[in-house]
Amino acid sequence: MSTIQDVAARAGVSVSTVSNVLNGREGRMRPETLNRVRLAISDLGFRPNQSARRLKTGHVPMIGLMVPSIANPYFGVLARWVEAAAQEQGYGLLLCNTYREPEREREYAEAFMSQGVKGVILGSALAAHEHLLPLVDDGLAAVSLDRAQVSDGLVRDFVSVDNRLAGSMAVDYLIGLGHRHIAFVSAPAKSMNRIARVEGAKAACERAGATLDVHIGAVDADYTESEMAELGRQAAHDILSSDSPATACVGVNDMIAIGLLAGFRQCAQRIPIDVSVMGIDGIYLGNYVSPTLTTVGQPMEAMARVAVDHVLKRMKNPELPMQESIFEPQLIVRASTGPIAGSAPDHSSAPACSRV
Amino acid sequence: MSTIQDVAARAGVSVSTVSNVLNGREGRMRPETLNRVRLAISDLGFRPNQSARRLKTGHVPMIGLMVPSIANPYFGVLARWVEAAAQEQGYGLLLCNTYREPEREREYAEAFMSQGVKGVILGSALAAHEHLLPLVDDGLAAVSLDRAQVSDGLVRDFVSVDNRLAGSMAVDYLIGLGHRHIAFVSAPAKSMNRIARVEGAKAACERAGATLDVHIGAVDADYTESEMAELGRQAAHDILSSDSPATACVGVNDMIAIGLLAGFRQCAQRIPIDVSVMGIDGIYLGNYVSPTLTTVGQPMEAMARVAVDHVLKRMKNPELPMQESIFEPQLIVRASTGPIAGSAPDHSSAPACSRV
Repeated sequence: MSTIQDVAARAGVSVSTVSNVLNGREGRMRPETLNRVRLAISDLGFRPNQSARRLKTGHVPMIGLMVPSIANPYFGVLARWVEAAAQEQGYGLLLCNTYREPEREREYAEAFMSQGVKGVILGSALAAHEHLLPLVDDGLAAVSLDRAQVSDGLVRDFVSVDNRLAGSMAVDYLIGLGHRHIAFVSAPAKSMNRIARVEGAKAACERAGATLDVHIGAVDADYTESEMAELGRQAAHDILSSDSPATACVGVNDMIAIGLLAGFRQCAQRIPIDVSVMGIDGIYLGNYVSPTLTTVGQPMEAMARVAVDHVLKRMKNPELPMQESIFEPQLIVRASTGPIAGSAPDHSSAPACSRV
Repeated sequence: MSTIQDVAARAGVSVSTVSNVLNGREGRMRPETLNRVRLAISDLGFRPNQSARRLKTGHVPMIGLMVPSIANPYFGVLARWVEAAAQEQGYGLLLCNTYREPEREREYAEAFMSQGVKGVILGSALAAHEHLLPLVDDGLAAVSLDRAQVSDGLVRDFVSVDNRLAGSMAVDYLIGLGHRHIAFVSAPAKSMNRIARVEGAKAACERAGATLDVHIGAVDADYTESEMAELGRQAAHDILSSDSPATACVGVNDMIAIGLLAGFRQCAQRIPIDVSVMGIDGIYLGNYVSPTLTTVGQPMEAMARVAVDHVLKRMKNPELPMQESIFEPQLIVRASTGPIAGSAPDHSSAPACSRV
């Protein structure tokens, strides 16, 4: 049986030209091209296949993935796994950056819809999703990745690691090493996952009678490429400038933790002797920094696969009941954490380290 | 003057629903929805604007960016800058992963074309582009980012750093520090930029009478998330197992160099005392590893802006002469490189470090 590719090859045109002919979009085509395509279709006895029909009905085999900033390696890794899972199901992936702005999410979702892309995975976990409601009403299948269900009146599907548990696991591990004063470094709580991680960390400290300083760093409005790492680096300086610095720090994500490592190194802190550092996410870069980063990992490959599965099911059946999948995080112990020293760390021997 | 958003708000539908009405795509719409939209259009005296016309003619305000693997932070950063530049010009960006496979590039380009996305930036710098020829003939505006012009018979546009110069600048800097035996670590030469960087490094070594070992690591066929860093880590072990190891190493990109740092650390090498390491690209992560990475940087923001400019010009005027922009790389000296020790580094004191 001949394929659309065979027709294109025989006519000496691209597959999309053949598709245009099949779907009556011949307006701007040269008559001789149109004739060549028609001749090839007839010579080969070609009949449009599934994907040609998809083009015709406006349902192209693509799903969209929205992430806050693809310059953050966490979202790069996520995108890589989501694409692999989509590919397995015969779908391609379109990615876009939203910078956590509801208006950009809406604009991209509109563009997807107008192009026949009817399913989207939201990697950005915004605290509110109302801006997408009209599109969901119009038939957009939207799956939230990295947030659990909240009652915002929007029936949709959710895939997430248990972020509250991830926050408490990180703190519990440090408490087990003897730390009683822990700093938790986050970016502003625009997203649900950050709020849940902070809450989990607070609860774990309360249970153990330990102190948690929540340090919310500022993110540059431009979402520069190094935003999260830089936030962590600055936070390390701020933490050390306090009268009684924490002996261990958790970054709300691995990129912030990687920045904390760099900041503490600049101030001649030995990690983990003077201060322990850990992250949450489990991105591969934690293996390539020094010391290697202890973290609470998410099963990103499995989560990506389930998110793709949910969005495809929702596209096929808008009436499906809400789908929610929560994954367990996993502690990954590496070299950046250690037992608390016999006494509070002595910072007096460190070179003066001014805020940069 | 009212906008399409005003019409959508008044009718209580999404902008894409209004767009469907404006463009005669009413097939699957409920009659009451259609009536609400028509009433709103008439009440507000709305006339379709430029972007609605774009939708009608099939030219949506989007350009595509193809990268080998977005899990590699280099491409994440590139995507971030390309999007910012596209946004300034009123265009959104669609990203996709090609894993350096011509067939995937072709499929995505077909999908773009069938969705009215007529311009694409190729970040993957494949050595051959013939697979895109039929699409370019059909009107796809394609700009190669990160490769210089080669005569493959395809008139197109090019934006690149001078990769040959980048390779020679890295080696010249190490030679200036006294190194006479340098390893150059690359992935297989599927892409033009790698070939040019290796050539530049070779030429610089020849000029100085120094020795260059070109080490081509294997890349896992699955393009795992950590592919480049892992290649570098393995290469460090391989280099140390030679009878007379190089005293300095250049990674063909920063991610390989970051892997080299991790591999040498595992083998208890002190960087830069025992071995110097440098990269090429200048991604921000080089600032957050330990020691911080000396590298040859590309002006990525400027390159992204010019690439977007070229693709938009090509979309508007397919008859434009070839556009080519080559940027100068810039040496960024940080802590991972240093003068050669008085004698060859003494590896006998290092713990035995077997290949992992």
